[in-house]
Amino acid sequence: MNNYWTTRRTIRKYSDKEVTDQLLNELIAKASFAPTTGTMQLYSVIITRDDEQKAKLTPAHFNQPASVNAPVLLTFCADFNRFTRWCEASGADPAYANLQSLMSAILDVTIFAQQFNTLAEMEGLGCCYLGTTLYNAPQISETLDLPELVLPVLTIALGYPAEEGIETYRLPVEAIVHSEKYRDESGEEIRAKYYTEIENRDDCKGFVAEHSKDSLAQVFTDVRYPRANNEHFSGVLKEFLEKIWLKPQ
Amino acid sequence: MNNYWTTRRTIRKYSDKEVTDQLLNELIAKASFAPTTGTMQLYSVIITRDDEQKAKLTPAHFNQPASVNAPVLLTFCADFNRFTRWCEASGADPAYANLQSLMSAILDVTIFAQQFNTLAEMEGLGCCYLGTTLYNAPQISETLDLPELVLPVLTIALGYPAEEGIETYRLPVEAIVHSEKYRDESGEEIRAKYYTEIENRDDCKGFVAEHSKDSLAQVFTDVRYPRANNEHFSGVLKEFLEKIWLKPQ
Repeated sequence: MNNYWTTRRTIRKYSDKEVTDQLLNELIAKASFAPTTGTMQLYSVIITRDDEQKAKLTPAHFNQPASVNAPVLLTFCADFNRFTRWCEASGADPAYANLQSLMSAILDVTIFAQQFNTLAEMEGLGCCYLGTTLYNAPQISETLDLPELVLPVLTIALGYPAEEGIETYRLPVEAIVHSEKYRDESGEEIRAKYYTEIENRDDCKGFVAEHSKDSLAQVFTDVRYPRANNEHFSGVLKEFLEKIWLKPQ
Repeated sequence: MNNYWTTRRTIRKYSDKEVTDQLLNELIAKASFAPTTGTMQLYSVIITRDDEQKAKLTPAHFNQPASVNAPVLLTFCADFNRFTRWCEASGADPAYANLQSLMSAILDVTIFAQQFNTLAEMEGLGCCYLGTTLYNAPQISETLDLPELVLPVLTIALGYPAEEGIETYRLPVEAIVHSEKYRDESGEEIRAKYYTEIENRDDCKGFVAEHSKDSLAQVFTDVRYPRANNEHFSGVLKEFLEKIWLKPQ
């Protein structure tokens, strides 16, 4: 298991073997012992198995293969609703419909989700984060009946693996570690020092060729995370957050 | 180690035993194999050991004991700077100074930080998240020389433990798990079903008495996370984000 950390793989195809509610609850309970802001546990997780619900959620995830294939989708939500209601029932004055509280809840739910992801993978489950959850937060919120102070942040598609998954790669650790102050290097330095090995991988060269691009970076900026998408969905999210979390004080 | 997950404890006092750069780099390298948005690794970590730097950072963390005591502070930052510079050096058109990209980077760095936290605790280090990083993001950014597309999100104070730490408690798992749709319960139901055991703990009763409050919830709303603080620091953060990430498109 010591080997787990650097050999783990994202899984996007799943077998028919059932993932029981009992197992999910055990893993979720264990994961909830991860660090949490002031013991507040500012999160909830919604389990989706129902075909009708899945048919509504998968388009919100742009029909990514993992979202279509998985027997279970777990939507991890930042949740200040439960805590606020508890405060109200306790003669207290909760004031959490604001940006800092949202951020606390987003960090809280992400720490919790990652603890769950690790525990689930160690248990032999195959997992895939869907980073699209915040792109279509309004539709997902409607589908899952989320109240005002609950925001869907991350989704994990999961099931027992029906594929080995692809070995992944990472930047050399020097690229991400800074001592005392941020070391701001030029693009040319960054490219030469940290990206040469990645750009020379066969799979990465394949992406460039497949999309007829000049560089790997262009695959990201033109195909995977292009300007128009980033800006459009930023506008959608900003408008959605302005209803509750980003209201002018 | 199977026991680790539910028995882990936050540590706020540290011994003199040195935490070497070699160990930190090994743990950070391992943690970087955690899931990351599109293999982009939208994060950096700044290691603080220098006394002068610590003297600037600890007030930004309201002089929390862990921040004062720890031999090492790790500031985990959402980082679109490195990726953007790489894109620019590759003839690509990066467009990541927007809300969705910020959110992707915040999720990315939080997943990475939590993977690091787990690995560090398993290695025998004592860790304490400082949730105050986003409260004083402007000062922390200045102290660490962070460029425009880098935002400090989380800090972990760490060292070898010089205390056992306090056994923590969590809500029953039923409170956080929802099946198919969000189950929106009343404050009274939430309080009775999920908070009775917590409110009856000796330590929690102690907090209520210590602050002369009527309920545990009031300790949160009046002392720990009060309205004036939440709203003030939300305004600070919003103004800071509006310079780069929340600019009108």
